[in-house]
Amino acid sequence: MINTPYLLFLGDAPDSLSVKVARGIRDWRPEYAIAQYRMNDCNADLGIPDMTLMEAREAGAQTFVIGVANRGGTISENWKEILLQALEHGFDLASGLHQQLKRDHLIVFTADKYQRQLFDVRIPQREYPIANGEPRTGKRCLTVGTDCSVGKMYTSLAMEKEMHRRKLKATFKATGQTGILITGEGIPLDAIPADFMAGAVEWLTPNNDEDHWDLIEGQGSLFHISFSGISLALIHGGQPDALILCHEPTREHMRGIPGYQLPSLEALRDLSLQTAQIANPDCKVIGISINTSELTDKEADEYLDKVENRMGLPAVDPYKTGAGRLVDALQELP
Amino acid sequence: MINTPYLLFLGDAPDSLSVKVARGIRDWRPEYAIAQYRMNDCNADLGIPDMTLMEAREAGAQTFVIGVANRGGTISENWKEILLQALEHGFDLASGLHQQLKRDHLIVFTADKYQRQLFDVRIPQREYPIANGEPRTGKRCLTVGTDCSVGKMYTSLAMEKEMHRRKLKATFKATGQTGILITGEGIPLDAIPADFMAGAVEWLTPNNDEDHWDLIEGQGSLFHISFSGISLALIHGGQPDALILCHEPTREHMRGIPGYQLPSLEALRDLSLQTAQIANPDCKVIGISINTSELTDKEADEYLDKVENRMGLPAVDPYKTGAGRLVDALQELP
Repeated sequence: MINTPYLLFLGDAPDSLSVKVARGIRDWRPEYAIAQYRMNDCNADLGIPDMTLMEAREAGAQTFVIGVANRGGTISENWKEILLQALEHGFDLASGLHQQLKRDHLIVFTADKYQRQLFDVRIPQREYPIANGEPRTGKRCLTVGTDCSVGKMYTSLAMEKEMHRRKLKATFKATGQTGILITGEGIPLDAIPADFMAGAVEWLTPNNDEDHWDLIEGQGSLFHISFSGISLALIHGGQPDALILCHEPTREHMRGIPGYQLPSLEALRDLSLQTAQIANPDCKVIGISINTSELTDKEADEYLDKVENRMGLPAVDPYKTGAGRLVDALQELP
Repeated sequence: MINTPYLLFLGDAPDSLSVKVARGIRDWRPEYAIAQYRMNDCNADLGIPDMTLMEAREAGAQTFVIGVANRGGTISENWKEILLQALEHGFDLASGLHQQLKRDHLIVFTADKYQRQLFDVRIPQREYPIANGEPRTGKRCLTVGTDCSVGKMYTSLAMEKEMHRRKLKATFKATGQTGILITGEGIPLDAIPADFMAGAVEWLTPNNDEDHWDLIEGQGSLFHISFSGISLALIHGGQPDALILCHEPTREHMRGIPGYQLPSLEALRDLSLQTAQIANPDCKVIGISINTSELTDKEADEYLDKVENRMGLPAVDPYKTGAGRLVDALQELP
């Protein structure tokens, strides 16, 4: 588990798109986002205070989070001196980059010297058991998608926010690096050895209060041939009681594989439910989350209406209108 | 790729069950099984010549294969001196044990000294790409199961044997440690990081002659919650043209998870085909392989007849009668 709160490092970000991780933290865990640290040529701004390393330490920040990604996922040479200074000032470092902090000798040496921790959130931090499939107490809701990158993480986080607003017991459970950096914990499912995928999901979502919901971040898609095995491990390890279907309606083909068309929401519903009921016969599909960011407001409203009528399930864009109706549907479950 | 042929090490095997790996090599790659090496208190016998290390080297053996498993999958202290002598005599070592050869300092030191190779076949030997889903030339046949350990590897190997007998182009493709030791190559799919499972299967089964069949060893089951993700990665990475359903009719519950019942062959057929057709719309289920080892001959015959009539597909026990009718069905495909 990563120590919070954070000082968010935006580095020399060329634009606001490249600080997606930092923005996720600011949006979903504002209490962790004490301040931002920007280099002179940074073109991104999260709208939170700028602080020096010392000011942020004095304000209580524990971890210096690399909230910026460059092409190739490397640790930029321009950042190195600042990362070393952060360790010297008493920060732990956390990174979701492909290039590992723990593979950089100078960073490791400096972290040892100041007894600080390094978190490479793409790398499993422990071993996981093989899934045993035993029923667990508490409830679990999983987001499943017609494709990768259609809003599964965002939907789970939006549901958590709304459930906390209603004083319901709920915990977002991160299964990818952005989610782990946002919440400070989770499993990097895509890096876990195949035998232990479902067991890692069981470990992540253990027994809990009967009225508690784990909101599990989905990954990939049962219909995306590159990552479908990960999606099925989430369905079988997660033993969900409820599924939310996630979709982006303007996508022309499955992400990264041009020869493959997206499935219909009906096909996603049926295959997800059929496989989920192997582990939990009571599992139900309770709602639909549509990422309408590429549609006009009018198009979005019409699309949501159409989907809702066709599928007989609440269909919302939680980006635009919150996850209230999805949480209503969870609460209506017996 | 492991150098062949082999000297098969049976160690101090307490019984013939514990030399399953060595027997697999003898049965399926007799040309690799030059001889066996047994310690004084060995209770197993493969019925092939016993040779000393020197005799086997002179007969051409290249690799000393640990063909015996003890409880816990460790390298027994009693074996150590012989393994070191084998390296000294010029053998490479290959092992499917849980405890790695490469983690034993004395074995590593000795292998370096004699410039020999160590193969821990449970550990991926390279990195694999993310699956791209592009169509490939050649044909592929995958075994899928109602459960783990129902005869998927055996079925694929039996089909390869029969196809070679008919002078057809076919290659068994190993995806687990026993299969890798039998053939000397393959992928340890259960140890590959989740993101790369399907890509590893694509790498294993690349473009080939139009009339060549890769016979892919299946793993797990879509219905086994611990390992279903691995099975789906095989289906989507393998892009099979043909599926064989594998089943063991006396199993009372899914292996290792007592609360879970086996699916029907119909359910296996439907879910396997539906998921396989995402990657290859022309995929067909062409036959059924039943492990009847727990039935009497009469029971087996009746069961096979019943399944064949019910499913409308050839149903055989390749252990007992060979895989001829499964290969007939492959050959009848357009």
